[in-house]
Amino acid sequence: MTDYYLGVDLGGTNIKIGCFDAEIKLLGKTSVPTGAEMGPEAVVERILSGAKELLNEVNVPLADVAGVGIGTPGPANYAEGIVIKSTNMPKFKNTPLRDMIGKNGLGKPAILENDANTACWGEFAVGAGKDVADMIFFTLGTGIGGGVVCNGDLVRGAGGNAAELGHVIVYPNGRKCNCGQRGCVEAYASANSTAARAVDAIKAGGKSTLEAVLDKKGELTSKDVYEHSDAGDPLAREITEGTAEALALICVSMLHTTEPSTIVFSGGMIAAGDSLLSRVQHHFQQQVWTLKPEPIEICFATLGEDTGIIGAGALAKHAREQGKLA
Amino acid sequence: MTDYYLGVDLGGTNIKIGCFDAEIKLLGKTSVPTGAEMGPEAVVERILSGAKELLNEVNVPLADVAGVGIGTPGPANYAEGIVIKSTNMPKFKNTPLRDMIGKNGLGKPAILENDANTACWGEFAVGAGKDVADMIFFTLGTGIGGGVVCNGDLVRGAGGNAAELGHVIVYPNGRKCNCGQRGCVEAYASANSTAARAVDAIKAGGKSTLEAVLDKKGELTSKDVYEHSDAGDPLAREITEGTAEALALICVSMLHTTEPSTIVFSGGMIAAGDSLLSRVQHHFQQQVWTLKPEPIEICFATLGEDTGIIGAGALAKHAREQGKLA
Repeated sequence: MTDYYLGVDLGGTNIKIGCFDAEIKLLGKTSVPTGAEMGPEAVVERILSGAKELLNEVNVPLADVAGVGIGTPGPANYAEGIVIKSTNMPKFKNTPLRDMIGKNGLGKPAILENDANTACWGEFAVGAGKDVADMIFFTLGTGIGGGVVCNGDLVRGAGGNAAELGHVIVYPNGRKCNCGQRGCVEAYASANSTAARAVDAIKAGGKSTLEAVLDKKGELTSKDVYEHSDAGDPLAREITEGTAEALALICVSMLHTTEPSTIVFSGGMIAAGDSLLSRVQHHFQQQVWTLKPEPIEICFATLGEDTGIIGAGALAKHAREQGKLA
Repeated sequence: MTDYYLGVDLGGTNIKIGCFDAEIKLLGKTSVPTGAEMGPEAVVERILSGAKELLNEVNVPLADVAGVGIGTPGPANYAEGIVIKSTNMPKFKNTPLRDMIGKNGLGKPAILENDANTACWGEFAVGAGKDVADMIFFTLGTGIGGGVVCNGDLVRGAGGNAAELGHVIVYPNGRKCNCGQRGCVEAYASANSTAARAVDAIKAGGKSTLEAVLDKKGELTSKDVYEHSDAGDPLAREITEGTAEALALICVSMLHTTEPSTIVFSGGMIAAGDSLLSRVQHHFQQQVWTLKPEPIEICFATLGEDTGIIGAGALAKHAREQGKLA
């Protein structure tokens, strides 16, 4: 009998489910609308029926499933598997999601983890970090999420809230962050902040080819900013340099904290490609100490949109190996 | 038969050795000059004879010693127990110190670790962090050393150089650090940098009661700066506030990286007492996010001058429990 794993990525809009073999090869996947407005019981029902249909499709008997990994945004009590509350799923309050899906749903042991950590674990287990033991992971989207792997294991912290890397301060007394701090890397280098800094610079009188876009759409995206930067617009270029510098600074500080061998960037903004990556690498080399060469790899994630389900499945396997599936 | 441990703190000036019972209670200690100029073989001979005399004094037979912990400044290959080189002991080059003291010296398994990590481990095992699983440790001396404990274990990093926390960047493009970077926390908040910033401020024309001290001694210490700050000198006060602010910034960033429940400051500068600690705590609360209250404890180390040998002994015990003594 082979062991199989299910990975569930529960977002505010969609539920994604993947079925994996013991090497975390994706055998099949499905996606259904979350229907969060119907409340946790109905959402869990969709997950359970979606999982059973998927197992049928890929010809894996439920009896052969060894564990279920579930990734979802916090805040949650991950040790107990309880979602405390959820911005995108307001009816989830102190919801014992792990056991509703796991032992009381599919009759299988399960693990609940925040979605940045599951994405991180996916890259660590089978993606950009698969051959290393120490990795730092960033998601560059609306905000900046993070994951920290030390010595082959996720760093979860004293209260399960480690790796909130978007809120590491890079510019003291700098831009205001939604979290209440000033100068967080998220306030400079997330996709939203990259766009917001461009809007601010234009509103402050800066000349840019982005002005026409802003006039027409009433807003900018980081994609706009990178496109105009690549096309040679100096203001857009200054903004994207600022994003790369802020990310390089946090890479230097992470090097001196947990000494990863690999730093992985993921999320929507990595679509900017080399305009982002090569400049982060450049500014890292400019900023980092000269005491010794640092053989660190700074790279992009490789798993794409399936990272959430892959990470959840891989984490279920890892937790099982550690005897920590509940 | 009870298990005993030896802890060796090998510095450029003195060798300190402690003998511990299985609960890491210090049974006795000794200190001898290092004599580094005589080279590694002679230094090891002093360690071996010092250890044997100590065991005699405390009536512990060598046969009952379960392991030896050795703390020393790097750079070293800790996994292999080899000191690569040493600023204060220039004749140490690729010296297999762990095995010279351990299996080929006392005939006992041993572990080699850098001195900041052993000091960190001492506080973690039996000092300020003894009831927690996640801790951050700083030594405030000539430079700033660090230690990171996650989930009950030291974070060593991909190349054994994790927790170089003095080189986390707090003020980008700020003061030049000896490491080649700019804006490292060490360039602001070590004992030496605290004194250096006061000297710089006076040389830049600042008025201070410290001027007379500087004129007389030709230099300042951090002790001078804290004394004059406590006595009400505004320039000295500004400098010590700057030290507290820089330390608070790194505390916030460490909170969001590994989420320690305790952050411990040690080293000579903690003699400044509440003038240092309460202001770090104050600035931390000013800077940290408002998303949720953070029940983090920021405190001073409790082990004093024996921390090096205690940490080395405690680390030997821990490594043995993990099956990692060599």
